[in-house]
Amino acid sequence: MSTEHKMQETIVALATPPGIGAIGVIRLSGSGAFQVANRVFKGKNLTSQESHTIHFGTIRTEDGQILDEVLAFIFKGPNSYTGEDIIEFSCHGSPYIIDQILQLMIRNGARFAKPGEFTMRAYLNGKLDLSQAEAVGDLIAATSAGEHQFAMQQMRGGISKEISGLRQQLLDFASLIELELDFGEEDVAFADRKALSNLVDQIHGLVQKLIDSFSFGNAVKQGINTVIAGRPNAGKSTLLNALLNESRAIVSDIAGTTRDTIEEEMVIDGIRFRFIDTAGLRDAQDSIEAIGIEKTLEKVAQAAILLYVFDVIQTSPQQVQEDIEKWMNSGKHILLIANKMDLNPYTTFEQYFPDEAIQERCNLSAKSWIPISAKNEMNISHLKSSILKTALGEHVNMDGTVITNARHYESLIKVRENMEAVALGLAEGITGDFLAMDIRAAIHWLGEITGEISTDDLLGNIFGRFCIGK
Amino acid sequence: MSTEHKMQETIVALATPPGIGAIGVIRLSGSGAFQVANRVFKGKNLTSQESHTIHFGTIRTEDGQILDEVLAFIFKGPNSYTGEDIIEFSCHGSPYIIDQILQLMIRNGARFAKPGEFTMRAYLNGKLDLSQAEAVGDLIAATSAGEHQFAMQQMRGGISKEISGLRQQLLDFASLIELELDFGEEDVAFADRKALSNLVDQIHGLVQKLIDSFSFGNAVKQGINTVIAGRPNAGKSTLLNALLNESRAIVSDIAGTTRDTIEEEMVIDGIRFRFIDTAGLRDAQDSIEAIGIEKTLEKVAQAAILLYVFDVIQTSPQQVQEDIEKWMNSGKHILLIANKMDLNPYTTFEQYFPDEAIQERCNLSAKSWIPISAKNEMNISHLKSSILKTALGEHVNMDGTVITNARHYESLIKVRENMEAVALGLAEGITGDFLAMDIRAAIHWLGEITGEISTDDLLGNIFGRFCIGK
Repeated sequence: MSTEHKMQETIVALATPPGIGAIGVIRLSGSGAFQVANRVFKGKNLTSQESHTIHFGTIRTEDGQILDEVLAFIFKGPNSYTGEDIIEFSCHGSPYIIDQILQLMIRNGARFAKPGEFTMRAYLNGKLDLSQAEAVGDLIAATSAGEHQFAMQQMRGGISKEISGLRQQLLDFASLIELELDFGEEDVAFADRKALSNLVDQIHGLVQKLIDSFSFGNAVKQGINTVIAGRPNAGKSTLLNALLNESRAIVSDIAGTTRDTIEEEMVIDGIRFRFIDTAGLRDAQDSIEAIGIEKTLEKVAQAAILLYVFDVIQTSPQQVQEDIEKWMNSGKHILLIANKMDLNPYTTFEQYFPDEAIQERCNLSAKSWIPISAKNEMNISHLKSSILKTALGEHVNMDGTVITNARHYESLIKVRENMEAVALGLAEGITGDFLAMDIRAAIHWLGEITGEISTDDLLGNIFGRFCIGK
Repeated sequence: MSTEHKMQETIVALATPPGIGAIGVIRLSGSGAFQVANRVFKGKNLTSQESHTIHFGTIRTEDGQILDEVLAFIFKGPNSYTGEDIIEFSCHGSPYIIDQILQLMIRNGARFAKPGEFTMRAYLNGKLDLSQAEAVGDLIAATSAGEHQFAMQQMRGGISKEISGLRQQLLDFASLIELELDFGEEDVAFADRKALSNLVDQIHGLVQKLIDSFSFGNAVKQGINTVIAGRPNAGKSTLLNALLNESRAIVSDIAGTTRDTIEEEMVIDGIRFRFIDTAGLRDAQDSIEAIGIEKTLEKVAQAAILLYVFDVIQTSPQQVQEDIEKWMNSGKHILLIANKMDLNPYTTFEQYFPDEAIQERCNLSAKSWIPISAKNEMNISHLKSSILKTALGEHVNMDGTVITNARHYESLIKVRENMEAVALGLAEGITGDFLAMDIRAAIHWLGEITGEISTDDLLGNIFGRFCIGK
């Protein structure tokens, strides 16, 4: 098999980031790793050393010239990252030296590793399942505590365990149903329909829970889009600056100062938010402003959280209500940022939303009402914690399994469809062979998440996104 | 002593380049390295493990949250880079994770390492002498085979050996002379003046050889400035493109196309050259061109090698001679690049330089005459090998000790002065106490090269240039 053949090849890559540093680590993996290493490393025969030991020596070219003094780290398969023999060389962190050593190894029987190829071999050798391997990439890319936590949970097998549990239960049931089919015309029912119906409900519930967690998990992974919008001169740019605690956006008393949208990331309690300051919404005065306003509407459409900022002096309750009603059915979380409260500290939620029907339609409550003074940085920390609470929703403690990967999400959507088909089939009393088809399909989709079922295309797609050397 | 106290501190730094990669390596060194490591690493007690072994585990925060799954590499002092206990952690190459782990270690008793502090400790603990420690920095910065070779030679003690040999001989002689002084008025001469005179000559000769090697060594380390100059439309930019084998500079038939100087590096046979294309030299047509021409003259002044390019059809022998005579006393190596030879292949060196007196004055010979056609890339490889030969001069085989470090060069200049003073003193028959002063001074300067004598300022200056983590 071609996959088997490729596995025999010895691959090499720089495992540390490129550039100048104190050290760089070159990683060799494959059945010929020791052979390649011994051809270039002088000082000891590495083959005869114990696994998990470190050896000093030099790397020399074919004509004996010393390329570097290095440490060789030995990992004998299967007790290594890939499950194969691995030798890592810690050399001086010089791009010139690293390039020379890589070329020397290529001349001596190794080939350059493709992106993610070490981790793909780890998966193919059963060291990690597919969702764990995917989490390695997420872990490296993590830039906030939230992303890090979900990736670590997934890498350590959190999701795999849930998925495998569901899959095993379905497998057991599928076996019983298929046993019935063997008895053909005899009309026996080994598989208890009532129990199957309960199981299907239970699995449907779990799958739905995981699907529901995706919007949150994905937002944490990608950063949560939080758009600051409102009328001109409401103090949107001043608010952005107050949130970031720096003078990022240009502010002035002139309405229409902001034209381009300005995006800045900020981590609040481990969750990454992308704050987007936008042009004020009004009838545009010129064509540049018109483009700015169009961009604002686009950004609002992509927002998870909308910070609607208004000037408590200049903007009437009717105007605020008009603005909010435009977005009330968008499913976005809207926070009402009552700005310039230093000028009128007695403004209340009820003044602006006396009508409970409107409150309900707009999904607003006194909790959404956040009085601030962006200019004086008043109540900004309360605003931040309100933004965080809005983002976390019911996921307040960040525990439990959360789906962050779009591929897993899509598979789970398929599993939900299959479960709904089985439930319908049971209600209509259809025969076992039809039930078995849908159950088998659900088993297949669950298996794709953990990689018990995979294709070359799927693997290429997943590992091609990794960096080289991983 | 304050230095002793600092040595007890445990330092930590990222040893690999910053950025995203498969792995990053965090290095801990100092008497508390195991203590800090055991507080954050879970899986094994690292203290009870053998030196030069590797251990898998997790790094956890104070409240038990897993920051990463890591490998711990153990090096017990004195068998480590610094001579102290070192533990290196190979973690996932995520800037977020690395930052979290570094902060965790700081909270648990380590402090951030200063630039070069690991290597400085190696020097202070006698693992490397000072010139070897300096070579580590040069080795990491090397971008060509030549630089790499000199840095490797120096790191492996090549220069130290030569210097220590000279120093030991001087120490022996100084002892004999000082013995004479102990006998005060008795007018004995233990130190054979003839032998001392021979030794001084010999050391002077060796020191002079090392001093002479510096201009070459430094050029190899910094790259060799090679300026392409000549009249407008001689084909200078076309030549640069031909040398680089790419369309780097804009070329046209219009004289004065190049205004800004263009610099590109290229390695020929392991030696790095910095090729500088310049504006053509003529009376400027406008103020921009005037600035360009001024820049050309500046660049020519800094050149080690001057490629004087001229058009064999348009430029008369008199004009070439006029141009060359301007630079003939500059001490630069001049190559006469007779361009556009495709148009007139019979042009000869003798036509342009019939007068041997001029040849001599300009240090020109038929060897400096390189007929090419830049446009047709004719004879470019011969030109490259001529440039290389000109750069190598007598250092054809790159063997022998070469000084590349300005600090060593300055110390050697001082040693030469001292040797000349001793030689003069011997010739004038001055007394032993005066000779001893100069010999002691020479011993001091040689000791500064290898670091047998050093000051805090000197060390700060040297190691402050290193990257953090080395």
